[in-house]
Amino acid sequence: MKIRVYYEDTDAGGIVYHANYLKFCERARSEVFFQKGMMPTEDDESGFVVKHIEADFKGSAKLGDTLHVQTKVITLKRSSALLLQEVFKEAQILFSMKVQLVYMAKGRISRIPEKFIPLFTPLLIND
Amino acid sequence: MKIRVYYEDTDAGGIVYHANYLKFCERARSEVFFQKGMMPTEDDESGFVVKHIEADFKGSAKLGDTLHVQTKVITLKRSSALLLQEVFKEAQILFSMKVQLVYMAKGRISRIPEKFIPLFTPLLIND
Amino acid sequence: MKIRVYYEDTDAGGIVYHANYLKFCERARSEVFFQKGMMPTEDDESGFVVKHIEADFKGSAKLGDTLHVQTKVITLKRSSALLLQEVFKEAQILFSMKVQLVYMAKGRISRIPEKFIPLFTPLLIND
Amino acid sequence: MKIRVYYEDTDAGGIVYHANYLKFCERARSEVFFQKGMMPTEDDESGFVVKHIEADFKGSAKLGDTLHVQTKVITLKRSSALLLQEVFKEAQILFSMKVQLVYMAKGRISRIPEKFIPLFTPLLIND
Repeated sequence: MKIRVYYEDTDAGGIVYHANYLKFCERARSEVFFQKGMMPTEDDESGFVVKHIEADFKGSAKLGDTLHVQTKVITLKRSSALLLQEVFKEAQILFSMKVQLVYMAKGRISRIPEKFIPLFTPLLIND
Repeated sequence: MKIRVYYEDTDAGGIVYHANYLKFCERARSEVFFQKGMMPTEDDESGFVVKHIEADFKGSAKLGDTLHVQTKVITLKRSSALLLQEVFKEAQILFSMKVQLVYMAKGRISRIPEKFIPLFTPLLIND
Repeated sequence: MKIRVYYEDTDAGGIVYHANYLKFCERARSEVFFQKGMMPTEDDESGFVVKHIEADFKGSAKLGDTLHVQTKVITLKRSSALLLQEVFKEAQILFSMKVQLVYMAKGRISRIPEKFIPLFTPLLIND
Repeated sequence: MKIRVYYEDTDAGGIVYHANYLKFCERARSEVFFQKGMMPTEDDESGFVVKHIEADFKGSAKLGDTLHVQTKVITLKRSSALLLQEVFKEAQILFSMKVQLVYMAKGRISRIPEKFIPLFTPLLIND
């Protein structure tokens, strides 16, 4: 997943605004679904919700840079998944995040729908 | 309506990103409703939609500035309203926009609900 | 220029937030430069500034849609350019905007640098 | 620090987009400086940088909600500060984040300027 840095992504410091790395990672997560012709939700009342994030900001990006987001699955459970997402500028790592997603349906934690499982399993990290 | 300029509002040019003036104006329009304890929609399938914009960018704002948005109604019609919104930094005008809003319900242009009319009439510009 | 609609682009109405069409158009303008290995500025104190916008919102886009931005130049002058930018979802036009850009250097309206001219001329609309 | 939820803050899920809680917290951090008539940077080449974040998403907010951000300092060191920031909707906690800030000057980790210390010390949490 390639991402170009535009003016909207930068701030007065001249570099990418810190919260935008979370946006870049969300785009990459959504693309996992879109690439297979799926939406990340089944209906208006269900979907994956971000529950916990641990993020390290290791470098900075500026206007015009081309970034690359890598998404891996650390653990896949009945109702949740723990992902590792990293943003690179060429070989240099700029951002690394562990993000825990929980599947919610009608306001309750629910089993991840079967159809979504084949999207995650190829991304599982080897032990 | 007062607005503070934060990092998120600025871009690598060090000033407020141009599209964010439209956000500031939308906040001011929403506040017209919120201040009266109303929401800008009646339900999920209706609400005001932006149809046309004419905007002039006259000055720039930077991190930490306090801006002021002034909202006036030029014309109020059965299903639409033409607003004049201006963003100031103290006495200096930075942005001026005429925005045409249309009320949509279930995908069709519809009469503006009666309860919203008293929100607009006090903002009407004198001829 | 292709653009995918992500969660960040949508609002509680379920469709793309109106001001984000301006972002999409800005991305397309920046790509005109990036594609040629150039930046849209010469230095920190110069660059193209948006002076005037006339925009029509003709349709809506939702999560996962792939949009297409087309950029044409209506007139090219010494210090400014008038562009026509249109956002399509397949054959359907969603957004159309005339945007006037002015080149500023050290706070003053200035001649557009020669090196930028070949970026604009191929985009000129036939009379 | 009070924050109103506007359309721009929400996404197609009808609630505040997850990365925007980081923006709300950044606004609250900037206000710590603005309220004292200071800027969060000394010049273009220095300032506080977000290095690490641990965040829990505990609830959701929707259009028109008024949120409240509380900022406390857990530890203050020579060149860094660890903050606890929490976002509430009335008494309900929606978001909690530990954020580590590091002061950078000309690309190097540097001592936090003396003038900024009195902004942090009143926010220190009691042991």
